[in-house]
Formats: sequence, C-alpha cells, structure tokens
Amino acid sequence: MLSRRCPPEQSDTPVTTPADAASEQEPERHPDQERAFEPSPGPAFEPAPEPHGARPGARRRPGGRTARIRRQVLDAVLAELGEHGYDGLTTDAVAARAGVHRTTVYRRWGDVGGLLADVLDAAGDDDWQPPDTGSLEGDLRALNEEIQTALTAQPPVVAALIAASFRSEKAAHAQRRLWEDRYARCEIVVTRAVRRGELPPHTEALPLLIAATAPLYHELLLLRTPPDPRLPGRAARAAALAAAAGAFPGAAAADAT
Amino acid sequence: MLSRRCPPEQSDTPVTTPADAASEQEPERHPDQERAFEPSPGPAFEPAPEPHGARPGARRRPGGRTARIRRQVLDAVLAELGEHGYDGLTTDAVAARAGVHRTTVYRRWGDVGGLLADVLDAAGDDDWQPPDTGSLEGDLRALNEEIQTALTAQPPVVAALIAASFRSEKAAHAQRRLWEDRYARCEIVVTRAVRRGELPPHTEALPLLIAATAPLYHELLLLRTPPDPRLPGRAARAAALAAAAGAFPGAAAADAT
Repeated sequence: MLSRRCPPEQSDTPVTTPADAASEQEPERHPDQERAFEPSPGPAFEPAPEPHGARPGARRRPGGRTARIRRQVLDAVLAELGEHGYDGLTTDAVAARAGVHRTTVYRRWGDVGGLLADVLDAAGDDDWQPPDTGSLEGDLRALNEEIQTALTAQPPVVAALIAASFRSEKAAHAQRRLWEDRYARCEIVVTRAVRRGELPPHTEALPLLIAATAPLYHELLLLRTPPDPRLPGRAARAAALAAAAGAFPGAAAADAT
Repeated sequence: MLSRRCPPEQSDTPVTTPADAASEQEPERHPDQERAFEPSPGPAFEPAPEPHGARPGARRRPGGRTARIRRQVLDAVLAELGEHGYDGLTTDAVAARAGVHRTTVYRRWGDVGGLLADVLDAAGDDDWQPPDTGSLEGDLRALNEEIQTALTAQPPVVAALIAASFRSEKAAHAQRRLWEDRYARCEIVVTRAVRRGELPPHTEALPLLIAATAPLYHELLLLRTPPDPRLPGRAARAAALAAAAGAFPGAAAADAT
C-alpha cells in the first residue's frame, strides 16, 4: 500500500516561476489507489484542488510541470521523513532530493509544516473506499489490517508523519482533515451492517469506527508494542460485538433512553 | 489530578556536587497521590529508586538536597513543557527556571530526553490504584474520566509529554514503561469483574483495558476532537459490553477454540 519508490525519479529538474507554480494542475488518476486510513502517497500522488500558496483565481491547466514538481517534492518529503524523521526534514534537503530549486519549495510550501500538510492533503486525494467483505467484523478486520500494514511499514513513513503532525499546527490540521475524511468514507461499513440487520438501527458510525481502529494506533504508535497478527481481528471483533450489543446508539436513540 | 503549582518554588537554589547528586534520596510520600494513566507529577513528586546518572553503589540518605533539586528540576520541565512545548525545552531554560546550576542539570540528566524520561519515571513512582466502583463499566468510566481530565488539562502538560516522547528514544521508553505499569495496575479491575461474574473466566486484561482507554487517546490526542463529556462513559461501556460478550478470551481460552 505504501510505495517503496523512494527517492523519486530525478529525471526532471525544472525551476518554476511563481506563475508556473500556481497555474498548472494534473487531473489524471493513477491505478494503485488502494489506501488505508493514513497518508500513503507514493507514485500515485495526485494534486489537491488548490495547492498551498496557489493564487485563488489562477488559471488551471491539466498535467504539466507544476504537478510533476509537486509529486517530486512530496515524494522527497516522504523519503526524507522515512530516512531521517522530522528532525532531518528541511526545505533545503527536500529541494535537493527532489531536484528542484530551493526557492520553488520555499515559495510554494513556505516551510516544513506546509510541506507536511500538503503531503497529507495529497494523500486524501484519492478514491479509496473501505473493504466490503460481507460482514461488519470482516470489514473492520480488513480495515485494521490496512492500518497495521501502514503503521508497521519500513521505512516508517506513516508513523513519522503522524509524529510530525504534533510539531506543526498546519500538519496537525491536515492530519485531522485526512482522518475525518477517512472516517466519513468508512461510514458505509456501518450503514451496510445496519442494512444487513447486524446492528441496531441508528447505530452511530464514528464512535464505532474509532473503537474498532483506536487500539491499532494505541498499541503500534503510542505503546510501540511489537505488531501482533491477532490485533486487527481482535479490535474488529470487540467493536463489532459492542456495536451489536447497542454500545453506539447514536443521538436519536440515546435521547430516547 | 495534575498539579497547577507551576512554576515551582524558587526558595532553594543549591548547587550540588556529583557526589551530592548521586547519594541522596527522599523517602517520604506525599498525600495527593491520585494519579491517572499518565504522568501527572506536581508537588507530589517523588524520586525514582535510582535517578539517571546515579552511581549504582552510591549510599542513600533519606530526603535532602538531591531529592529537592530533582523535584525542582522536574517541576521546571513540566512548567516549560506546558508553556512552550518540546521546542521550548532546553536544559538551560529548565536550569534557570528551577534555580539550579546548568551543569547540575547537564551532569545528572544529560539532555532534554533524559529530563523527560525522568519526569515519566517519577510520575510512575506513586501508589496510584485504579478506581473501585463496584462494576466493570463503572471502573472503566472512572478511569477514562481521569484520562480525559489529564489529556484536556491546561496547560496541556500530559499531551505535550506524550508528544515529546515521539522526539526522544529515552522519553519514548520511559513513556512506555509508565503505560505498561499503569495497565498492569489496572488488571485488578478485570480480575474483580471476573470474580463478580461480570466477565467470562480467563478474560485477558490488557486488550480489554486498551479497548476501553484507546478511544480517549485517539480522539483527544490524535484526532484532537474537542472533549465530549460522553466519551469516557461510551468507551467504557463499549469495552465492557465487548468483554462480557467474550471479545477478550485470553490465550488459554483462545487456544481451546
């Protein structure tokens, strides 16, 4: 799921003007868009609708140099982060690795926080959908497997990105946007389970999804417990059992009690 | 639960020798030792059996200057962390705030990571016990209330400490030791519930406790969701329902299936 294609190709080393940086976009989608709950960019990077620092009214052109530069720069951020962590991350190192001029990076992303925020925004710019296995527990387990894979990947890019988001308000907001988007996409898992009769009507999706996934982040990121192959299934099963027993009644049902 | 007594008293500004730093300990316990799952030091600071940098065979004397300096320095770490976060934390700033010589801090704790690790070790050096409310759900809810209080306190010392532990291997290990100790102490909550017949025999305590508490850390620390007064109870109830339904069968029971 996480690309190992680091560092990015160095074949193109353009230097842009500010107008370049603001005026081009790349619309095509890449095939490998299976993403979990976290930033997992790589060769499939896609531009966000409005890159940081872009002029609001700027004309858009599909594809081109700006999108290519963005991909190179954001791939370089991930490679630097995976190798050196946040403390090794500088706009200069990113520019050098991406093969672009340092003023381009500075002008377009501002600082390391801006770079991290754009990595996270770009990671959310895909068409990832949660797994559909036919059962709530199966869907949650498959989701957790994706999360465990991402959090234990080497180099530890996703873990480093989450850790880095503690260091920058911009990155923290982008990290939160990405998670909110992922949880919103996962609501269909709960809707389907209600429709199948596995869950009480009005089951609230978000707390259920957090209950199912939080133990993964807690053990792998906070407690740094070695990965346990039983963890994704166990957390999924616990959340599914709790939900079936009515642990997440939702606002309407809760008000009625 | 978290002391607001920051900055610490400045009445004592001794300069120690290395021999001082290694030879004195303070044995008396302070009364306000109700602590949650996290570092919550303050006026009740107590020395760990062996401070960082202490010589293994050093003679111990109860109380005294070294213990007082340690308390001042660790209180200063917390105050700096609460005000400025990790990025404002330097051994010099801590020394100045604690009113001790900078070489004392440098010699005894080495660096910021050593200071953070000692804060976390000291936080675990209490006689905190989990709540005993008479029911599993009640115990877990009370525990979660403590966690929510700690994670949302102002200044955000606990959140800053956890974030800082991503920056230093020493602090990360100490954070993990503290959590492991807290979870171990909480196993009695599960034992009591099994004894009361609320849970199946052989219910595994640790995954149950993580399921109950992880949503708090996830929402308040990672997602940065505004505190929800229903969160502690909801996470407790979900974990209790899942556990009662057999979600945490333990190794023996799981092997038998």
